[in-house]
Amino acid sequence: MASVLSFYLSYLLLLSLSVCVLVCVSVWSSYWRGGFAWDGSALQFNWHPVLMVSGLLLLYGNGAVLYRVPLTWGQNKLPWKLLHAGLMLLALIFSIVGLCAVFDFHNKNKTPNLYSLHSWIGIAATALFALQWVFGAGVFLLPCAPPSLRGLLKPLHVWMGGGILGLSVAACISGINEKLFFVLKAGPSYSDLPSEAVLGNSLGVLIVAFGLVVMRILSNQNWQRPDSRPEDLVYTPLLQEENE
Amino acid sequence: MASVLSFYLSYLLLLSLSVCVLVCVSVWSSYWRGGFAWDGSALQFNWHPVLMVSGLLLLYGNGAVLYRVPLTWGQNKLPWKLLHAGLMLLALIFSIVGLCAVFDFHNKNKTPNLYSLHSWIGIAATALFALQWVFGAGVFLLPCAPPSLRGLLKPLHVWMGGGILGLSVAACISGINEKLFFVLKAGPSYSDLPSEAVLGNSLGVLIVAFGLVVMRILSNQNWQRPDSRPEDLVYTPLLQEENE
Repeated sequence: MASVLSFYLSYLLLLSLSVCVLVCVSVWSSYWRGGFAWDGSALQFNWHPVLMVSGLLLLYGNGAVLYRVPLTWGQNKLPWKLLHAGLMLLALIFSIVGLCAVFDFHNKNKTPNLYSLHSWIGIAATALFALQWVFGAGVFLLPCAPPSLRGLLKPLHVWMGGGILGLSVAACISGINEKLFFVLKAGPSYSDLPSEAVLGNSLGVLIVAFGLVVMRILSNQNWQRPDSRPEDLVYTPLLQEENE
Repeated sequence: MASVLSFYLSYLLLLSLSVCVLVCVSVWSSYWRGGFAWDGSALQFNWHPVLMVSGLLLLYGNGAVLYRVPLTWGQNKLPWKLLHAGLMLLALIFSIVGLCAVFDFHNKNKTPNLYSLHSWIGIAATALFALQWVFGAGVFLLPCAPPSLRGLLKPLHVWMGGGILGLSVAACISGINEKLFFVLKAGPSYSDLPSEAVLGNSLGVLIVAFGLVVMRILSNQNWQRPDSRPEDLVYTPLLQEENE
């Protein structure tokens, strides 16, 4: 009971951080950076932080902890499997549209793509996420892999899931840092810490806190779905047995 | 046996990545950025990336996985506890000297400190690391806490350890990205991807790979020190029983 209560307190913290991060990145892009458009201008770029943070961080992180919610621990795992896969697909679509926003903005402004370390880390995170989704759907949702292989691959899926979240946080932090140096060059500059800089830095701190809470929820063995414990490695894919 | 072999392969990868990261950051600072000094010039700044990467990332990551090395699994845990604490203390000292290098460089050049998101994340990582070291030594090394409290706090220590590594990686990536934008402004610029940019970006990729391998080693339950399993939460601090 104490474990369930402490889980829900952590989960409430996660949801609160999700809302704070979403509000911060939206206010930054809409109020401080002038809003949104899809016309090759700086307003098109503004979709990039909002979509990447919403997709590759918030939807992704919330999708990752889904199986830890005790409410999902009933006999029928299928709806939660579908919700997990669905949330992750939505996260992937948001991320891809977020990448399209910046690629298109760069192309229309004759700016090279994929030269900065931020872009290398961000593109690696998205590519690994796409691979992880295809691999996850093929192995854990469809009846392609035998249960023994699924049991063997699950720790790899969980580790890679955490790794992609880490890459996502690193891409967010380097991206916010880079953007603040770009746009706050003079009167006031970044080093004067004007309101926009405090907002951007606070967004970064909230993102890190979100990542830490997700990792805490994933790493707490008391909060694992009972059938996911190492001594009970029985997995059944979607089309093999629906009453799993 | 297969588990031990796969551990040592991962550990070899970790050690190889450690060497590659150290070589890259040293070559960057010494060859591309002109070498080292402690005179308030840009050469003093060059200590910052080398010391932070060596301390807060490489020594820290290698210290974190120490208990996973099967060689350390003998009855007497004491020497390994001391080595773990010693490596972490060395990592902390490197990090603090690395921070002194950049603070002193900024002060002598009338540049404000601690305004960028990179600096906020970096200082948070170092402060949390210092707290973690003091807390870890007090709880797990000295006989201050009863075994039940130690058992309760160990997962928190492990999670916070992983979290600090994540912060460290995010600080490294944002710092490298920022530095490359600062120094590669014209002829050639960062977007032309000159050799220095490729080296810096590759350093970032190697750092991420290092972080992923550390997290993989820490998260693999087959590689945990046998007495660290949840069903056997018996901890004895340094001064309570030396033959632990």
